[in-house]
Amino acid sequence: MTRHRQETHGAQSVTGGPPLLRQINQRKILAILRSEGPARVGELARHSGLSRPTVTHVLDQLSEAGLIDYLQDHPDGRGQLGRPARVARFRAEAGYVLGIDIGPHQTAVIVADLDGRSVATTRRSTSSAHDQHQLLAAVRSAIETALEQAGVTEQAVLSVAVGSPGIIDRRVGTVVRAPGLPGWTALDLGEELGRFFRCPVLLDNDVNLAVLGERWRGVAQDTDDVVFVLWGERVGAGICIDGEVHRGKAGAAGEIGYLTVLSKDAAVAEPDGEGRGPFEREVGARAIIRLAHELAARPGHTSSLAGRPTLDVPAVFAAAAADDPVGREVVDTVAARLAAGLAPLLLVLDPDMLVIGGGISRAGARIIDSVAAHLRRLVLVPTPVRLSALGQDAVVTGAVRQALSEVEQRLLPNPETARDGAD
Amino acid sequence: MTRHRQETHGAQSVTGGPPLLRQINQRKILAILRSEGPARVGELARHSGLSRPTVTHVLDQLSEAGLIDYLQDHPDGRGQLGRPARVARFRAEAGYVLGIDIGPHQTAVIVADLDGRSVATTRRSTSSAHDQHQLLAAVRSAIETALEQAGVTEQAVLSVAVGSPGIIDRRVGTVVRAPGLPGWTALDLGEELGRFFRCPVLLDNDVNLAVLGERWRGVAQDTDDVVFVLWGERVGAGICIDGEVHRGKAGAAGEIGYLTVLSKDAAVAEPDGEGRGPFEREVGARAIIRLAHELAARPGHTSSLAGRPTLDVPAVFAAAAADDPVGREVVDTVAARLAAGLAPLLLVLDPDMLVIGGGISRAGARIIDSVAAHLRRLVLVPTPVRLSALGQDAVVTGAVRQALSEVEQRLLPNPETARDGAD
Repeated sequence: MTRHRQETHGAQSVTGGPPLLRQINQRKILAILRSEGPARVGELARHSGLSRPTVTHVLDQLSEAGLIDYLQDHPDGRGQLGRPARVARFRAEAGYVLGIDIGPHQTAVIVADLDGRSVATTRRSTSSAHDQHQLLAAVRSAIETALEQAGVTEQAVLSVAVGSPGIIDRRVGTVVRAPGLPGWTALDLGEELGRFFRCPVLLDNDVNLAVLGERWRGVAQDTDDVVFVLWGERVGAGICIDGEVHRGKAGAAGEIGYLTVLSKDAAVAEPDGEGRGPFEREVGARAIIRLAHELAARPGHTSSLAGRPTLDVPAVFAAAAADDPVGREVVDTVAARLAAGLAPLLLVLDPDMLVIGGGISRAGARIIDSVAAHLRRLVLVPTPVRLSALGQDAVVTGAVRQALSEVEQRLLPNPETARDGAD
Repeated sequence: MTRHRQETHGAQSVTGGPPLLRQINQRKILAILRSEGPARVGELARHSGLSRPTVTHVLDQLSEAGLIDYLQDHPDGRGQLGRPARVARFRAEAGYVLGIDIGPHQTAVIVADLDGRSVATTRRSTSSAHDQHQLLAAVRSAIETALEQAGVTEQAVLSVAVGSPGIIDRRVGTVVRAPGLPGWTALDLGEELGRFFRCPVLLDNDVNLAVLGERWRGVAQDTDDVVFVLWGERVGAGICIDGEVHRGKAGAAGEIGYLTVLSKDAAVAEPDGEGRGPFEREVGARAIIRLAHELAARPGHTSSLAGRPTLDVPAVFAAAAADDPVGREVVDTVAARLAAGLAPLLLVLDPDMLVIGGGISRAGARIIDSVAAHLRRLVLVPTPVRLSALGQDAVVTGAVRQALSEVEQRLLPNPETARDGAD
């Protein structure tokens, strides 16, 4: 009630206002510095609508808190009365955030400053980790290496966001279900990683972070409603609606690996022995290799893929690019299958854009074009289909974005809302 | 900039504040009266955190604007110093809203006051309308009858919301595509209906309004993410995410009638001669009747449905309820088909609830239970499946809610946010 009175009736004097108002003014000035870059008191007063004495006072407070400092050499700065104009600058190095992507093959860590600039990046193979303990040790080692490279202490880390496969219970930071990672299911990852840091550790499904990454720095920067489909051994979708990740009531939104649209007869959404859903079994990496073996073994066909004891996805896609008939048939078949699974998603959401990423998508634009062509026949209103711009960095980039958002919500104003705040 | 200063620095005196602040206080007091019911000055001062003189002043302004009046006989009211306490009351009759549902068979109109209470309801058959002109005339006549019944003039109508089948371009109020209504496609319904009224006329897809209706007064009152599936001759979904209708980039979200999940071979999302999509052709009313004819005609079967020249959906469902083998087979078959189409929707969204409405759903709980049973095998995390509580009133109820929301955004505070505003 008291706080409300303050908000309504405001301050009676410029510098003697109540704490909340001071905080509002601090946020306003910080937001302008973050969005517009270094600025002098007069510029800040004009942008903020605050008086020059208020701006000066707020800058002193922010400087004391370590969030700004002063430049003496503003590019177009000129002194008043012969004195050099004090130019205030947001200290992006006042703190750091960590983005982490834990996958079945590798773990990636990015250390970024408060402007989101990457200061250090580490990748560590996790293929050889056979249990929870080894996997966590590899993750920890990657974090330590990244911090060391960046010259950043754990105390300077203000927020950590982690992407992991599986259905995540974000309230308690637990991986509820994660096929494909040894010992990962039922792991209290939030608590385990929380031991490394004093700051908040946010856990999310990796594809949910990938969609944030593409919206922040990838192909989906101008979209509000966008779907990121991870297409690799696993298949899953990250869904962004009105700029927010849609996770569903149990964190299971976008689990399209369990679609049964391609299954015959009495299909059920059940994982196989290795935790793969029905749709993943039809369009995942293993299905592609199996299909290539089958088609190449047909009598009467000549294919560069025939008779090769081992095949991998890049080899099959390279054959398709070289106009090998079997390669082309495989690509067209899996593209048609993927489109059959994605069509319901597009009919349901009618998003601004569909982004396809993951290991298989990196085989190139040809398969994306083929998927898009199949999709056009299956939906009412076509959706632009794009290849992920961030590739294997989509998840870890989204994790940095998520950690920054957490800091901004808790400590800093978001530069994107600066203009709203200043008008 | 000027306005911003006012917000930040606030008023210097209680009643002489700038217009914006006065408006904020008016909204605050109105919000309390709408959520808590009639109240005295002292109660309003306590709830709002405003002083008694400010409350009195605001009440005078609201009374002048016709938005409140005074009761003399508050249930638990006692006078101060022997005078009767003035009890202020929100005048829900200060204005009215109209909800309209235009369907291929009938048009429904509800006139409601500003508390959302229905004052009059009209239904008018539109089956005999053969073109745009006749349909619009029927709609207009239904509106006039409803207003007359309510004793409300057109001038007192503050907002109108209209639900129509089809893909709607809400920016310009045009029906982009509406199979099933004669001449409806490419109709500028917003402009046509706008001629009847001076107030805003909002046009939306009917299923989008149905989901709002169920969230407001139906089975989905405690949900944020809910999907309403209309199951009749047409099949479509209205999607509510975080309490907001999700419409998609072209207003085509939820157009699941065009799902091809049940189609064999090279299916395409194309309408048939009557504008029905592939999924509608498998699970719509006509498909049910065709299936019943086929199954009843098989040799060696005894069924009450055999040999009947005409069948309708209620007859088939009644037979199923009476344990007729063909009736039961039809119900189970179409329930399985519907579930196959809805499973992708649930895998994508993982909503709090799935509500099934429309003509076929009104055949009863048996078919809903059957759909739910099939769905459980097709998804990872089960979604509660409920029969629409509003039946044929879902769309028109949602239209009233939509019109009220428009008024609340433009003129009135929403009672649901009153507590946030007062604390």
